[in-house]
Amino acid sequence: MSDHQDAPVTPVEAYEPPYYVAVFTSVRTENETGYAETSARMEELVKDVPGFLGMDHAKTPGGLSITVGYFRDADALTRWRSDAEHHAAQQRGRAEWYESYTLHVAKVERSHAFTRGEASPAPSAG
Amino acid sequence: MSDHQDAPVTPVEAYEPPYYVAVFTSVRTENETGYAETSARMEELVKDVPGFLGMDHAKTPGGLSITVGYFRDADALTRWRSDAEHHAAQQRGRAEWYESYTLHVAKVERSHAFTRGEASPAPSAG
Repeated sequence: MSDHQDAPVTPVEAYEPPYYVAVFTSVRTENETGYAETSARMEELVKDVPGFLGMDHAKTPGGLSITVGYFRDADALTRWRSDAEHHAAQQRGRAEWYESYTLHVAKVERSHAFTRGEASPAPSAG
Repeated sequence: MSDHQDAPVTPVEAYEPPYYVAVFTSVRTENETGYAETSARMEELVKDVPGFLGMDHAKTPGGLSITVGYFRDADALTRWRSDAEHHAAQQRGRAEWYESYTLHVAKVERSHAFTRGEASPAPSAG
């Protein structure tokens, strides 16, 4: 859902696998009504989900938006998926805000991270 | 690697699980030398990998970049991971182009897609 303009400039870290990613790729309609408020509210709400690890977001102006949510396990995703307020926001999203989207829910098997100035990439697995 | 400005405005579709995603989140340095050429070359190269399904990319101006590569199976990812030219590009990326990045490689268990004007979301599983 997220479309915030003050995106942090540090990627979410490489957690120790296994964990889950929910990759949400979307193209918006031109209808902005209520979108920013709902998006901000969803960002707040997901933080309260036990097992939520973090979120990355990027949006090409006039183009594709990608939001990646990170969750400790499938149960955490199920909790988020069954949240009533989230469900209502998804319905409104299909009715008003999204031209198209795809969701990919996946279990992470391998991850690594790089930060400039650190000795070497830190593989967490594989 | 991708940072192209002419990003397609349709998200990659929801394939039938299982398949793999490689989620690459990054923040760039200010060093642009050779980046665009290498990025374009990698985009060409990955298309030749048997089992490569597609790629989504978004970049917040001055902020986070997210590239998601979709692969049919783990073997396809291994082929891409062991490509010599890709390997050289990754090394140069760490030396010159990336401030920080994280890679999450994950097996998709569930996916669905929505397109405005179609009857309903098409769940491919779950």
